[in-house]
Amino acid sequence: MEELELGYNSQLFARAVEALMQLPGVGRKSAQRYMLHLLQRGEMHERFVQPIADCLTGMQHCPECLGFSDTGVRCPTCADESRTNGQLCVVADVRDQLAIERAGGFNGKYFVLGGLIDPMGGIGPEQLPIAQLLQRVQDGGIDEVILAFSVNMEGDTTTFYLRRKLEELNVRISVPARGMPFGETLEQTDEITLGQALRQRTSVHVPMGLAVED
Amino acid sequence: MEELELGYNSQLFARAVEALMQLPGVGRKSAQRYMLHLLQRGEMHERFVQPIADCLTGMQHCPECLGFSDTGVRCPTCADESRTNGQLCVVADVRDQLAIERAGGFNGKYFVLGGLIDPMGGIGPEQLPIAQLLQRVQDGGIDEVILAFSVNMEGDTTTFYLRRKLEELNVRISVPARGMPFGETLEQTDEITLGQALRQRTSVHVPMGLAVED
Repeated sequence: MEELELGYNSQLFARAVEALMQLPGVGRKSAQRYMLHLLQRGEMHERFVQPIADCLTGMQHCPECLGFSDTGVRCPTCADESRTNGQLCVVADVRDQLAIERAGGFNGKYFVLGGLIDPMGGIGPEQLPIAQLLQRVQDGGIDEVILAFSVNMEGDTTTFYLRRKLEELNVRISVPARGMPFGETLEQTDEITLGQALRQRTSVHVPMGLAVED
Repeated sequence: MEELELGYNSQLFARAVEALMQLPGVGRKSAQRYMLHLLQRGEMHERFVQPIADCLTGMQHCPECLGFSDTGVRCPTCADESRTNGQLCVVADVRDQLAIERAGGFNGKYFVLGGLIDPMGGIGPEQLPIAQLLQRVQDGGIDEVILAFSVNMEGDTTTFYLRRKLEELNVRISVPARGMPFGETLEQTDEITLGQALRQRTSVHVPMGLAVED
């Protein structure tokens, strides 16, 4: 038995806390709070442990979008015939897909990269299913590819790389608009965002004889 | 099969996210981030699920302090003969015990109440092992009982209740000092704390012929 750390009287508790500390952003104090919470409630094996175990062991991927699929066949979104096949939205992971679905307004299909190009983190294009994405676009029926990534170094790197690859395929390539987020004051908007928002300003009313010029 | 919520394409994922949302303070977005993190790493059944399951099923209590004990016999702290039996520190749960151990300086024994009196939350004194605590003190050998609870309504209520009960047992009763926390500026200290800190001020230097009076 290894040495008990930091005054723990229970190895079972110490090991469970270490396990919970593997969650992103969860430190020792939160992990202790989580485990005590689980211990103080009943049926936590059935209600907490089992669903996570089932997901870890049973999860499969949709062969079309590479997102999640419980059965390994096409996921409900890919199989949804009310959605257009003409627009393909490329996202980093299913969380981003969920965020776009909740925002509403997009009625096309998705392609889940499963990550972003991140040279600093050791993730190059060859580790992402980019060949599969290009094949899907080449197979036809897609008019527009929307590269919907987070606005950061990895997102921009991936957009840049995919744009170069997709440009050869005669397809419209777009990215979400950049500008001032809802609820932000002009003064507090960072200068990169504000500069971009001003350069890409949109007309709301053009009086006769006047036009906004850049 | 129930309806999939909020655009999830996987019931396995949706259920695992719901499971993680049972952790205190964890919302849907954090739960999704946690589950994706677990899915993206390997061996998470062994390294995450199993330690938590083992803790939930195997955890027992020390018969003396009611804290954790893997085997159901006296915990290492209670069995530690280098610690004095004369001082008994009463805490709400093992997290508080760990915090006191890390602070250092206390070398007595503990008693873990497993909760605090919380009339609003429906927890009365009869749901806590108070009879067991009083018995332990009555059995003798304890000079001082330290009631070390959080500084809030539940902590103060429990201190008040236990003080009344313990006063009959001819034992010194104490609570941790209240005052300004380390690193706090005087201006930002809340008025209750500041008032208490001033009333309970401690002498650092008493010149001849002068004394701090209250």
